[in-house]
Amino acid sequence: MSRTIEFLFDFISPYAYLASTQIRPLAARHGAAVEAVPILLGPILATNGSRGPAEVPVRRDYLFHDVTRLARFHGVAINPAATHPFNPLAPLRAIYAVDPVRRWDLVEALYRATWVQGRRVDKPEVVAAVASEAGFDVDALAAAANSELVKTQLRAATDKAIARGVFGVPSMLVGDELFWGVDSLHLLERHLAGKDATDADEIARWRVIQPSITRK
Amino acid sequence: MSRTIEFLFDFISPYAYLASTQIRPLAARHGAAVEAVPILLGPILATNGSRGPAEVPVRRDYLFHDVTRLARFHGVAINPAATHPFNPLAPLRAIYAVDPVRRWDLVEALYRATWVQGRRVDKPEVVAAVASEAGFDVDALAAAANSELVKTQLRAATDKAIARGVFGVPSMLVGDELFWGVDSLHLLERHLAGKDATDADEIARWRVIQPSITRK
Repeated sequence: MSRTIEFLFDFISPYAYLASTQIRPLAARHGAAVEAVPILLGPILATNGSRGPAEVPVRRDYLFHDVTRLARFHGVAINPAATHPFNPLAPLRAIYAVDPVRRWDLVEALYRATWVQGRRVDKPEVVAAVASEAGFDVDALAAAANSELVKTQLRAATDKAIARGVFGVPSMLVGDELFWGVDSLHLLERHLAGKDATDADEIARWRVIQPSITRK
Repeated sequence: MSRTIEFLFDFISPYAYLASTQIRPLAARHGAAVEAVPILLGPILATNGSRGPAEVPVRRDYLFHDVTRLARFHGVAINPAATHPFNPLAPLRAIYAVDPVRRWDLVEALYRATWVQGRRVDKPEVVAAVASEAGFDVDALAAAANSELVKTQLRAATDKAIARGVFGVPSMLVGDELFWGVDSLHLLERHLAGKDATDADEIARWRVIQPSITRK
């Protein structure tokens, strides 16, 4: 049975960049496909009243150590983005604007531009340059990226992710089973290998726990 | 050269429980010692205006899946706590009340009581029962746990952790190098093995990134 991993990401996240370098080889080891699903992290955080790690000063500093250590662990390059946080609309919409068959080529090119080459992918002209270098028809891409269809697709994918319980990126979904973060890749891999399937009765026992204290 | 890992934890965190089952074997593989440092998660979250994962509904549900998967990955038992969140003052103070040489025995007994046996460790009488079963002098422990010295130690350890950039539990410190979460144990292990030491110049390059967008 062929399975699909939905890989939900936003270019804004260096953790999602790191996961993007690992997810396809991981899937291939288990005969699974990977669908790249661009979503907007901002509305997801807003829905939960959460802040991204880069928005909390001590967590921002930890993030720098963490992502550089993780990049070395995974054996991939990483460099600071030109600016951060940045507006990810242009590169995210570009992904929906290309032929689904070639979507991963542009995902990888734009992630490399952002987190290895330090380019300003928040600027449409930089997205166009990266796409051109990756062999895409830039005029067709620009027209599609500005279409209502593409704008709607990005928003709909984000809303659907929220409805499915996604609260951050990267998120990996296999059916309804959610894995969050580059740190969950080993758990995703065990899941694909059929190890330790989640037991609905076990989860149900956790859901009934009640607090005996609340914070102000 | 003998190194020490400071293991900062609060009984309230199932992730810290999972890490507590792994940290001493991990340290032993690299000839390092582990110092158990009880801290209060509540003031740490409050300092950063953050919420714990159990306080955000969708993250709470994910936590249930995540901790049960992680427990299986690490080959240890886990069950829901009797209540959650709960007031962790009684078990945390108890740790400071015992001979440092035997501190880990009580840490493990209280973690097992909380996250395997489902006992109400927020209640001082349950802490006393667990300590008694672990062979501690309960009268001496109760007297020390209620002393101003112990109360001050717990608060001071929490304040010191905040000053060092700790923002959650479990946190592991090797000197100033911080590792957060049970998911960072593999990075801690690489650090102890001398692999990929953090490069201060590299981190400095990250610290200068500026935002080009901010959320409301």
